[in-house]
Amino acid sequence: MALIVQKYGGTSVGTIERILAVAEKVKRHRDQGNQVVVVVSAMSGETNRLIALASEIDETNDPREMDMLVSTGEQVTIALLSMALQKLGCPARSYTGGQVHILTDSAYSKARIRDIDGARVKADLEAGRVVVIAGFQGIDEHGHITTLGRGGSDTTAVAMAAALKADECQIYTDVDGVYTTDPRVEPKARRLERITFEEMLEMASLGSKVLQIRSVEFAGKYNVPLRVLSSFEEGEGTLITFEDERMEQAKISGIAFNRDEAKLTIRGVPDQPGVAFKILGPISDQNIEVDMIVQNIAADTSTTDFTFTVNRGDFKRAKAILENTAQELNAQEALADDKIVKISLVGVGMRSHAGIASTMFEALAKEGINIRMISTSEIKISVVVDEKYLELGVRTLHEAFNLEEAS
Amino acid sequence: MALIVQKYGGTSVGTIERILAVAEKVKRHRDQGNQVVVVVSAMSGETNRLIALASEIDETNDPREMDMLVSTGEQVTIALLSMALQKLGCPARSYTGGQVHILTDSAYSKARIRDIDGARVKADLEAGRVVVIAGFQGIDEHGHITTLGRGGSDTTAVAMAAALKADECQIYTDVDGVYTTDPRVEPKARRLERITFEEMLEMASLGSKVLQIRSVEFAGKYNVPLRVLSSFEEGEGTLITFEDERMEQAKISGIAFNRDEAKLTIRGVPDQPGVAFKILGPISDQNIEVDMIVQNIAADTSTTDFTFTVNRGDFKRAKAILENTAQELNAQEALADDKIVKISLVGVGMRSHAGIASTMFEALAKEGINIRMISTSEIKISVVVDEKYLELGVRTLHEAFNLEEAS
Repeated sequence: MALIVQKYGGTSVGTIERILAVAEKVKRHRDQGNQVVVVVSAMSGETNRLIALASEIDETNDPREMDMLVSTGEQVTIALLSMALQKLGCPARSYTGGQVHILTDSAYSKARIRDIDGARVKADLEAGRVVVIAGFQGIDEHGHITTLGRGGSDTTAVAMAAALKADECQIYTDVDGVYTTDPRVEPKARRLERITFEEMLEMASLGSKVLQIRSVEFAGKYNVPLRVLSSFEEGEGTLITFEDERMEQAKISGIAFNRDEAKLTIRGVPDQPGVAFKILGPISDQNIEVDMIVQNIAADTSTTDFTFTVNRGDFKRAKAILENTAQELNAQEALADDKIVKISLVGVGMRSHAGIASTMFEALAKEGINIRMISTSEIKISVVVDEKYLELGVRTLHEAFNLEEAS
Repeated sequence: MALIVQKYGGTSVGTIERILAVAEKVKRHRDQGNQVVVVVSAMSGETNRLIALASEIDETNDPREMDMLVSTGEQVTIALLSMALQKLGCPARSYTGGQVHILTDSAYSKARIRDIDGARVKADLEAGRVVVIAGFQGIDEHGHITTLGRGGSDTTAVAMAAALKADECQIYTDVDGVYTTDPRVEPKARRLERITFEEMLEMASLGSKVLQIRSVEFAGKYNVPLRVLSSFEEGEGTLITFEDERMEQAKISGIAFNRDEAKLTIRGVPDQPGVAFKILGPISDQNIEVDMIVQNIAADTSTTDFTFTVNRGDFKRAKAILENTAQELNAQEALADDKIVKISLVGVGMRSHAGIASTMFEALAKEGINIRMISTSEIKISVVVDEKYLELGVRTLHEAFNLEEAS
C-alpha cells in the first residue's frame, strides 16, 4: 500500500464532467489499495471570473482581500470533487488550506509555505477516506487566508507529500510527461521515463513549462518523488527522481529553449576591477533580471567586451540604461539584439562525459548556425543563436545526441 | 459613539454597483463616529449557482460538502465589500465565520450558533476598521465549516451584535420596515416605528417574511435592539424592541395572514381520554407540522369534533392519514378543506384591553365573512376564513382597528 498525493490543475477540473472523470481516476488508485490525497486548483476560468469582479471595484485591490476572494475558487472544487467521489462510493472529505494547517508567511498573493501539520489528513486516510485539499492557499500565523501565487497548487501538492512522507507526488497536467524537447519543434521528441530534479530545474527554468519551478525545488529539497502525468490519457508519465537511482546515466536528457530573451553587449570597456558591477548595477536597480552573462578580453587586451541577456519584455529599458552606461564608462559601443534565442542541452551525464560541448558546437557549425554566446553550468550548456535558427538548431542537436532513442 | 452591526442580504449586494452603494452607506455610518460591523450574504444568484453545480453531480450530496461549497458565496461578498470600502478610503477587513470563531454545532446546513468570540472583531474596531463578516456560516468544534440554513445571515448579525454588546443590529432588506399588514393587500398599511419582539415573532411566524423568526428569537433572548430598514431607500425603518420601552401601548400592532394553510376536521369521535393524541400522533409521525388545533364538544355531547390546520403542501398526506384514523376511531366523518386562510390580529396591547375579539368578530360578520375556526394566544387572535375572503377580511380589520393612523 502506497500513500500517493495527486494534483489536478484547473483544466482537469474545468467542468462537472471532468471532475467526475478525475473522481474515477482517484477511485481507481484507491481501489488498488493506495491511500490517496488529492490537491486541486480552481475550475478553469473561475479565478479569472473572481479577479474580474474585483477589478470592477478598483484596478488594484488590497492583496489580503484578493486572497480572501480568489481562495474561494479552490474551495468550490474540493467540495465538488468530494461529492463526485462519494457518488462513486468512495469516502472522501475536503479541506481548505487553513483547515489542514498549511501555515505560510503573510506575503499575500505570493506566500511561502512554512509548515504543514499532516495529522488531520493522516487520521482521515487511516479512516479509509480520500482527502481532497484546496491547492494554492494557506493561512498565516494570525489565521488570515493567503495564496501561494502562480503554480501554487503544485507547491501545495509537493509540500503535502513531504509532510505526509508520501511515496509519490503525481502532478496531472495537459501533457503526458516531460519530453526530450518541445514536440511542436521536433516531432521526434520522446517522452522521458525519468529525469533528475536538477535536470528538471534546468528544463523548467529554460522554458519547458510543465511544472512550476518552485514546486520542483521543493520536491528536490524534501526528497519527494514527483511524477508528471496526463489528466486525460493513461500512461506512466515522467518520474522526476534522484540522480543515484538511475543505473546508467544518459549523457543528455533533453533540449530546452527560450524564445523570450534579448542580448545586450558593451564593447571596448576599459578593463578595471568593478567593471561588471558598473555595467549590471544600473540594470538590476531597475529590477531587470539578467540571465546569461559572458565577459571576454577584447582584441586590444586593455579593454573588455561584456555581454548579457535579459527578458525580451525588458529589452528597451535595458538598452537605454546600457547606452547611458557605455558613455559613462567611455566604452567603444553598446550593441543590442532582440532577435536571438537560447538553446540548452541539459543532462546530469554531462558531468562525467567529455566531448559534449564539442559535439554540440560541431553539429551546429555543420548546419551553418553561428553561435553568438556560450554559457555552461555543471549539467547544462547554453548557446545563443539567431532567432531564425531555433527550429533547425533544436532538431540538429536532438539528432546529434540521438535523443529519439531511449538511452 | 455607537457600535452598530449591519446586515445586508443577497439582493443588496447582488452586483458590484450595489456593493459599492452598500459601502457608501456603511462609510456614512462610520463617518458619523460609529463603529460598524457588517454581515453580508452571498450575491443574489450565487448560492443557487453553486447548488446547481452540485446537483449536476448528484441529486443529494453530503451536507458537509454542500456547506463547504455554498459557504464560498459569502466569502466572495466579504472580500468585494472590503475592497469597495477601502476604495472609499474606509479601512476594512473581512473575515469568514470560522475566522471570527462563530462556533456552531455540527448540524450541517442547519447549524445553530453556540458561541462567538468577539475579541478579534473588537480589536479591529478599536484599530478604526470596519469589520466585514460572512453571514450564514460558522465552524464546529472540529473546525469543519457549517452553514446556518435559511435566513442564517440575519442570525449571524444578531449573534454578532449580542457577542459585541452592540447598540443596535440593523437588518437591511428590500422593504423599508414592518407594516401593519401587507401593503399589496391593504394599500393603507402603515410602517410601524416600533414593534415588540413578541409581536414581531407572531407576525413573522404568521407569514410576514421580513425577518427570519430564528433571528428575532435570538435578538429577543439576548436583548439586542433590532432595526429593519431598506437597503435602497433612506429611512428610519422599524425598531424591534422591548415592550416596556413603549410609553403607551397600541392595542393592535398589525394584521398577519397566511395563505399556506389547509384545515382538517374529524367529526363525531367518541370522546375519551387520549383522543387528541390518537388523532395527531399519526400526523406527527409523518413529520407533518400542525399549526392551529381546536376541539369542541359535538352536539350529542358524547362525541367530540376535532379540527386542526397543516401546511398546504402536506394537505393530501394529512387527509389520507386522517381518513384512516377516522375509521379506526369509529368517527362520524373526516372533512378536509384547503381553500382557507388564516388572518391574525397581533398586539401586546390585547393583554390589557378587553373587547378586541368581539370588535374583530363583529367587523367580519358585518361583511358577511363566516369564521371557520378561532384560536387565541396572549397577544394574538387568529381566525380561519374561506380563502376568497382574505383581502376583504384584512382590509375590514385594518379599518376596524384604525391601523392607518399612528397610535
